[in-house]
Amino acid sequence: MFQLNDRLKNDTVEIGRLELSLLLLMNERSLPWVILVPERNGIKEIDELSADDRILLIEEIACVSKVIRHLYHPDKINVGALGNLVQQLHVHVIGRFVTDRAWPGPIWGIGLMHPYHIDELDKVLAQIRTALNGRVK
Amino acid sequence: MFQLNDRLKNDTVEIGRLELSLLLLMNERSLPWVILVPERNGIKEIDELSADDRILLIEEIACVSKVIRHLYHPDKINVGALGNLVQQLHVHVIGRFVTDRAWPGPIWGIGLMHPYHIDELDKVLAQIRTALNGRVK
Repeated sequence: MFQLNDRLKNDTVEIGRLELSLLLLMNERSLPWVILVPERNGIKEIDELSADDRILLIEEIACVSKVIRHLYHPDKINVGALGNLVQQLHVHVIGRFVTDRAWPGPIWGIGLMHPYHIDELDKVLAQIRTALNGRVK
Repeated sequence: MFQLNDRLKNDTVEIGRLELSLLLLMNERSLPWVILVPERNGIKEIDELSADDRILLIEEIACVSKVIRHLYHPDKINVGALGNLVQQLHVHVIGRFVTDRAWPGPIWGIGLMHPYHIDELDKVLAQIRTALNGRVK
C-alpha cells in the first residue's frame, strides 16, 4: 500500500487521485500550488519510474498545468521535482505571478506563510476537481 | 529554424542534439547542470508541447538524469522548468550534493559563480557525450 511522506501530508490537502499520482494542494493561499505524488513506493527520481509511468506523469503535469492556467491565469507555470528535503518523488506545479513574493526567483525554500481559510479551501478544492472533469477519483 | 534564447546561449555550452531537445551544459563547474531545450519555437509551457513531444521530453529528462547519476554520483537530481526570466521552454536537470552551496534549497536564482576552465570543459563535454552513447548528435 502506498505511503505518503509525513511532511507532504502535513503541508497539503488531498485533491484526489489521478491515474498515476495522488494530487495534493499545498496549503498556501498566496499561489495556486499543487503537487503530484506518483503512487509508487520507494521511488526518488523520475528515471526510477517505469517508462509507462513516466508517460502518465508528464501527461498529469500537462493536465494540471492547463487546469491552473484556466482557473487562475498565472503569468508562468513552474514545474519542479526537487526532493532535497522530502525524498519521496513529488512534482510541484505552481502558478506564478509577476506580483508574487518570490518572483522571479523560485518559490521553494522560502517557507509557507499563508494557509487557506477553511471556506476558501473548500472552494478551491471544488474548483480544481470540477476543472479536472472526471480525471480525478 | 529553431532560435535559442540569447541568455541560454550566453550561460551555456552546447553538448549536442537529442531527438527533441538541444542539450546544453550550464557553464558552472560547481555542479553537474544541464538544460534541455525542446527545439520548438514559441513554446513556453510543457502543456503547449504535443503529446508526442511530451513523451520525448520525459524520456530525455530520464536519460540525462541517469547520465548525471552515473558520471557524478550526486545525492539528488533536481528537475525544473521555471522560465520566470527566460520564457523559452527549458528544463534544468541538475546533480545536487549535500555539500553544495545552496543545499537543501533550490540552486536557481543565486547566480552563476564558477565558470569551467577550458580544458575541464572539454573533458566534461566528452564525458557526457560518451555516456549518452549515440543518443546525441
